[in-house]
Amino acid sequence: MTDAARLIYLPLGGAGEIGMNCYVYGYGPRDDERFILVDIGVSFPDMDGQPGVDVILPDVAWLEARADRLDGIFITHAHEDHVGALGHLWSKLRCPVFCRPFTAIHAARKLEEAGQDPDAIIRVCQPWPETAEAGPFKVGFAPISHSIPEASGLVIDTPAGRVVHSGDFKIDLMPIVGEPFDEPMWRDIGDAGVLALICDSTNVFSGHPGRSESQLAEPIGQLVASAKGMVVATTFASNVARLKTLAEAGKANGRTICLLGRAMKRMVAAAVEAGVLTDFPPVVTPEEATDIPRENLMLLVTGSQGERRAASAALSRGSYLGHELKKGDTFLFSSKTIPGNEVPVARIHNALAEQGVDVVDAEQGFYHVSGHANRPDLERVHDMLRPKILVPNHGEYRHLQRHASIGEEKGMLGILAPNGTMVALSGNQPGPVDHIEVGRVYLDGTALVGAFDGVIRDRMKLALNGLVIVALVVDEDESVLEDSWVSLRGLPEVTGDGADLAELIEDEIAEILPRLDARTVESDDKLDEVVTRAARQVCQAEIGKRPEVTVMVSRLMA
Amino acid sequence: MTDAARLIYLPLGGAGEIGMNCYVYGYGPRDDERFILVDIGVSFPDMDGQPGVDVILPDVAWLEARADRLDGIFITHAHEDHVGALGHLWSKLRCPVFCRPFTAIHAARKLEEAGQDPDAIIRVCQPWPETAEAGPFKVGFAPISHSIPEASGLVIDTPAGRVVHSGDFKIDLMPIVGEPFDEPMWRDIGDAGVLALICDSTNVFSGHPGRSESQLAEPIGQLVASAKGMVVATTFASNVARLKTLAEAGKANGRTICLLGRAMKRMVAAAVEAGVLTDFPPVVTPEEATDIPRENLMLLVTGSQGERRAASAALSRGSYLGHELKKGDTFLFSSKTIPGNEVPVARIHNALAEQGVDVVDAEQGFYHVSGHANRPDLERVHDMLRPKILVPNHGEYRHLQRHASIGEEKGMLGILAPNGTMVALSGNQPGPVDHIEVGRVYLDGTALVGAFDGVIRDRMKLALNGLVIVALVVDEDESVLEDSWVSLRGLPEVTGDGADLAELIEDEIAEILPRLDARTVESDDKLDEVVTRAARQVCQAEIGKRPEVTVMVSRLMA
Repeated sequence: MTDAARLIYLPLGGAGEIGMNCYVYGYGPRDDERFILVDIGVSFPDMDGQPGVDVILPDVAWLEARADRLDGIFITHAHEDHVGALGHLWSKLRCPVFCRPFTAIHAARKLEEAGQDPDAIIRVCQPWPETAEAGPFKVGFAPISHSIPEASGLVIDTPAGRVVHSGDFKIDLMPIVGEPFDEPMWRDIGDAGVLALICDSTNVFSGHPGRSESQLAEPIGQLVASAKGMVVATTFASNVARLKTLAEAGKANGRTICLLGRAMKRMVAAAVEAGVLTDFPPVVTPEEATDIPRENLMLLVTGSQGERRAASAALSRGSYLGHELKKGDTFLFSSKTIPGNEVPVARIHNALAEQGVDVVDAEQGFYHVSGHANRPDLERVHDMLRPKILVPNHGEYRHLQRHASIGEEKGMLGILAPNGTMVALSGNQPGPVDHIEVGRVYLDGTALVGAFDGVIRDRMKLALNGLVIVALVVDEDESVLEDSWVSLRGLPEVTGDGADLAELIEDEIAEILPRLDARTVESDDKLDEVVTRAARQVCQAEIGKRPEVTVMVSRLMA
Repeated sequence: MTDAARLIYLPLGGAGEIGMNCYVYGYGPRDDERFILVDIGVSFPDMDGQPGVDVILPDVAWLEARADRLDGIFITHAHEDHVGALGHLWSKLRCPVFCRPFTAIHAARKLEEAGQDPDAIIRVCQPWPETAEAGPFKVGFAPISHSIPEASGLVIDTPAGRVVHSGDFKIDLMPIVGEPFDEPMWRDIGDAGVLALICDSTNVFSGHPGRSESQLAEPIGQLVASAKGMVVATTFASNVARLKTLAEAGKANGRTICLLGRAMKRMVAAAVEAGVLTDFPPVVTPEEATDIPRENLMLLVTGSQGERRAASAALSRGSYLGHELKKGDTFLFSSKTIPGNEVPVARIHNALAEQGVDVVDAEQGFYHVSGHANRPDLERVHDMLRPKILVPNHGEYRHLQRHASIGEEKGMLGILAPNGTMVALSGNQPGPVDHIEVGRVYLDGTALVGAFDGVIRDRMKLALNGLVIVALVVDEDESVLEDSWVSLRGLPEVTGDGADLAELIEDEIAEILPRLDARTVESDDKLDEVVTRAARQVCQAEIGKRPEVTVMVSRLMA
């Protein structure tokens, strides 16, 4: 490396939003850096912004153009917003993927589903102080408590100094499953000198210290003990510790445990396979469970966020795999509702209430704890690591801003770096040095669609405005045949006066067509313009709406 | 009345949902009752369920068919979910509208906008103990504290006994604007004997006693006192008491008040006109405000729910009416975010944070109090009125259920009556006696569209799946001309391999068309089916999606 070598950080996703984590680190002379990527997650679409889209991926075009200089992808943990895009994007990046065993099971499935050979790609890593080398980077997976097994912060040693990438974390000394937060280890890591801490910001607005997973056993146990009928509990499938707490509460109260929902079974199996879950109570299959009296049964089910196809929603609508809820049963949401999911979650709550089910949610804080560090815990980690630079990540802009200003107050250099901000971490004046245009890519069916391609925008226009389709036939002499016809999509067929809307549009077009000059008839664009305007005018007058219009001109050949 | 006369209650909206309040009371022999309607509100659409819809109205078809027996519409207060549908639906019901003066100003605007003469329709009422007669009903507007001036519970005396319809309420002894909650009055109303209480259930899950509007003056005052730059505060425009608290906090700290947003100005003007607001600090126009130094200015703005076109959103995007926020300004959300609005509210919060604005929300409870009674306050009102029957309304199913069971525990008959449940309140066995099919009606532009008409469902299918339009021309001999063509809406133009998707579909159709038998070609339906299937197959193979397909067949006449 020459003296021009620098250490850079570039978030491609996850900074300025919660979800879709994707962070580039580079070291070397400008435009000749070697890179590693930390996490490659997805974000989830909603009807408001991305109707019909399957999943949202980070835009890795910048890194793809430099993929020959990419030495590895490091996955901090197995949540979808950290590993979910691996299968979809690996073929653009083609480099080894480093992760711990439990995470590797999930990463391997992503690669397999994308037709890749995981064994050739994945390097399974042991925890810090062991490290993996990738170009100029020496990276260690330092265990950190979160809400999924084997979550890790990354200790990234470079010729320019040490960077700690916290990953998602909380301070939990009794996390039930997985490694407790290890303060002496983190202090050791800090003692060696930390240039920069890139740090989770999700809960920066929560002012009280976080609570331990272990605090849930008692209230959940009491709830299950007092329940009369069947008990059903839902949480994130990946929260293996929570599943264990719930299952043990069931077992302690004479209930047999049954897992409902594919993700639930998969997560428990992966945790057992990776050796992180050793004493989960025995489970029965959904079929076996139908023979067990409901007061002796506890179902652990997927769908805590109101997902339409998951077990919770299915149970709220009726029966699912032979199980049906009824009056006197208890349904526990042992989960936080992610902003944006309130309405579907309430829908399930109400549907269960209609069945007479007692619904218990985590609103009062008895039945759920967060997996992210609150402000006092963030400050504790700052103090353990004492970095020169604090770069908040994993948060919306407001979270990053607050977190950076907390850092500033404590004497660190707080750098606000939303997606696309290239930050120099080394040198005399660390800070933003460049801005990369990063977007988002939508996986829509099997197609990758750019967020700014207009495809999804067009769909939203159809949904908001409805569509008039007009078919015209132009004959060999370039005269429009008058029997045009109109079809409506997403518009009322009859007007307030009871008239047929499509016919009214056809009549108006029939009035106009004979008056068009030859130049208009010859041009598809002009014909389109005239007919679109006429169709919109009729709709505006009749139903007070200006719809989308598609004009299909068929020209007969002589 | 004969001995067969009965007193019935029938919610058409607002029971099983929060919003769109609309309740029928009837008295008389079966199928010959006289009716009154209490409230006629709207609900608000979202992209998830009703894309493009302007507003959601209750389905009053049942009452419309009996409008000759409807003696009056009583409006409890001027919130949109209680009065918003009056203009849209009055012409179907055509009867006098009873309300108090402040509410009457809003009701009159609704009627005027619908082309009706409010003076001929509205009967302005004075508060209880005065009453208005409407058929067999004697109705009094008993002042009750809420979050808008002149909110009232209705005391409905009938030959079968007294019904109290609480309307939306809280127990607030110092509501800043309007009448304090008057316990002796409510006890008096109860002392005369109450057959049934129809009661607000919104906050039944909140276990602590509610807080008074008056408790906000101190923390809001402190916040404004400590602010350096401009102060902007948003809340519901109709919460006139909050506007006063905010404005007084501004004035006390040497700030001039400016109202931004049409609804804000309209509400304050209406409150002054109705005489309920007498000492609001002087305000300046947005233009005048541009001359005032920002540290001496306080803006009260619309858009606390993240509405795209309101002042808050406009300010977050840039300048609005000459005002622009900058680093060091303070923006206060003195409001609760209604479930479902979290994402747009967070968008504003983040956009303001990007401008360096200090955003303060009401999450910690310092800057907002609810307008609805919490569980302990509901129980206090139960105890004041001591009704035989409790029918919870204004809540989702889960709220109604919980509220009814609280009533049962206290020895009342709790009746669970979601929308469409006709309840007999009189007789030996009060309870549900019938179920009416009630839906919702969408105002879409100027058209009224039934929720089950399929129109909006079609729009959602377009948004989720995209659309392929195929134009075919069948010539005089009933042979399909091969130059069909395809247009795409909301679908990617090119496939992953870089091929033109529309062309691929055209090619496939060109393959198929020559092989069709005459019977298929003759039938629009069969042709549609074959072409739709082909288009879907190509899309499934090329982009992994099964789109909507519209086939436009033009048949040339001989």
